[in-house]
Amino acid sequence: MAALGEFELIHRYFAAAACAAPVPGVARGIGDDCALLQLPPGEQLAVSTDTQVAGVHFPDRHDPFLLAQRTLAAATSDLAAMGATPVGFTLALTLPQADPAWLEGFARGLDVMARACDLALIGGDTTRGPLNINATVFGRLPAGQALLRSGARPGDLLCIGGPTGEAAAALPLVLGERDPNGEGDGELLARYWTPQPQLLLGQALRGLASAALDVSDGLLADCGHIAEQSAVALLVDAERVPLTAALREAAGERALQLALSGGDDYVLVFTLPPAALPGLQASGQPFHVIGRVAAGSGVRVLDRDGRDITPAAAGYQHFGGPDGQA
Amino acid sequence: MAALGEFELIHRYFAAAACAAPVPGVARGIGDDCALLQLPPGEQLAVSTDTQVAGVHFPDRHDPFLLAQRTLAAATSDLAAMGATPVGFTLALTLPQADPAWLEGFARGLDVMARACDLALIGGDTTRGPLNINATVFGRLPAGQALLRSGARPGDLLCIGGPTGEAAAALPLVLGERDPNGEGDGELLARYWTPQPQLLLGQALRGLASAALDVSDGLLADCGHIAEQSAVALLVDAERVPLTAALREAAGERALQLALSGGDDYVLVFTLPPAALPGLQASGQPFHVIGRVAAGSGVRVLDRDGRDITPAAAGYQHFGGPDGQA
Repeated sequence: MAALGEFELIHRYFAAAACAAPVPGVARGIGDDCALLQLPPGEQLAVSTDTQVAGVHFPDRHDPFLLAQRTLAAATSDLAAMGATPVGFTLALTLPQADPAWLEGFARGLDVMARACDLALIGGDTTRGPLNINATVFGRLPAGQALLRSGARPGDLLCIGGPTGEAAAALPLVLGERDPNGEGDGELLARYWTPQPQLLLGQALRGLASAALDVSDGLLADCGHIAEQSAVALLVDAERVPLTAALREAAGERALQLALSGGDDYVLVFTLPPAALPGLQASGQPFHVIGRVAAGSGVRVLDRDGRDITPAAAGYQHFGGPDGQA
Repeated sequence: MAALGEFELIHRYFAAAACAAPVPGVARGIGDDCALLQLPPGEQLAVSTDTQVAGVHFPDRHDPFLLAQRTLAAATSDLAAMGATPVGFTLALTLPQADPAWLEGFARGLDVMARACDLALIGGDTTRGPLNINATVFGRLPAGQALLRSGARPGDLLCIGGPTGEAAAALPLVLGERDPNGEGDGELLARYWTPQPQLLLGQALRGLASAALDVSDGLLADCGHIAEQSAVALLVDAERVPLTAALREAAGERALQLALSGGDDYVLVFTLPPAALPGLQASGQPFHVIGRVAAGSGVRVLDRDGRDITPAAAGYQHFGGPDGQA
């Protein structure tokens, strides 16, 4: 009865893009007042919400195809950090106008990352306003097996799922402060725009890792959450922090600093009882041991001689401002 | 290790406000990468996401205490429309700055509505940017008992959970175009700022109603969704549409028009097989029969002589622009 507004058309566009095939855990997707999720007995649902704001988390000038991938990956990384198996997501999209080219690119990028993560779009809300994208993601896992931040114990190994610092090193490229030059810069940009949530690693860590989270605010800052919630100290061996060739090339002497205090990495950091090491190695998932857990508090970086070389400012504030996630 | 930014403080503020007591269905609330929900076997989780944008859904000048209530109520109304029992919600808050007075009022309003709806704050994300508030709400209900939009059948009664039009009649007051004057205007403002989701009515409708949704975009526009998804016609008897004294006083001859095509009402509209009428009456929940379901398509308004008096424009576009919800 009501004429279809342009935003209603957007809704239909994404609804059509939503996975029509039956998805385990999704009893009803888009199209009614609520979506309905249903899990097998004995499973829990992991839920996380993440907002990306133009001018804060990404530049006003951006490629919507890449932005959509980055937005969904950033949210889904929290599922990986709990060891959850992805189920679906809701998308709340606030747009200044309905630009068909932007929407087409965004929907395409969303589809790429949703398929890569095995996530179904189950609901959404489209509103007019300054560009703001919220994704709330849902995953499932056996009750009691979620990877928490609070279980690290002295003697555990400190591990990371992949190199950090590349997304931070990409910022001058993302902001247009310098032009990409060569293969290395392409790698940096890919790490910034299309991070791949470490879902398989997270699932492999269930029953093995004593604590885990994903690195979004910088390795040291996020290690601080484990240290605080587990009431332990985390000691990082600077020499063992992986630095990629692309990062070394772009950042030179600042490579280690970016790897420690950059952000937007979306790799998992976790603690592992030494007895669990062979089991994790057998999984074939990539990881690096970068330090250990000790009694005490806080996060310290040690050089090869055991001297404390912890940088003074460890936090990361994206490029436009700080935020906090619960 | 990282210095606490002001937005981290906000996060802690809301985390402290989150319900610390055990909540059925919430295995883990705020504090890790994800919240964890767990339902008894045989239950489904209803999920809905709703965004409110400054200058679109509410005025830039507003009372944060009222805004928080309205935001959470608007989202929770979708749980009522499915017949779900509330569990919890995530809050994604984008704020231009961390204003302590605004935050204090907003947190207080959130707490009031969360208690009224029996919802626990289970997670969130706080970012800097133009004011934008997203709530994703979670409810539970027995598998297969959700109230959908698609079950209306010819012969069913068309019913509404309460009067409509008052929130639309409040708009000149909300926008400061006229000053409140008397008790009636107070009622209109309360309907706009603090709608009460009809959760008990929704739960009472389980197993009785053939279709249901909540009226957010205007009675006729939302009836159109039931008509379309059930492939029936809905006939509204103009005489039976409830008009409150406050609405009549404020809107005069436009009262019926606002009741039919206003918006932001957040009452339930539903269809009911006549045989289910005594059962619903016995529940003690308030409702009005306003018409019936017939074979055909679309929504029509009839006067006492059965003449078609359907208004031409039935949609509602809030006060700043259209949007679409999935």
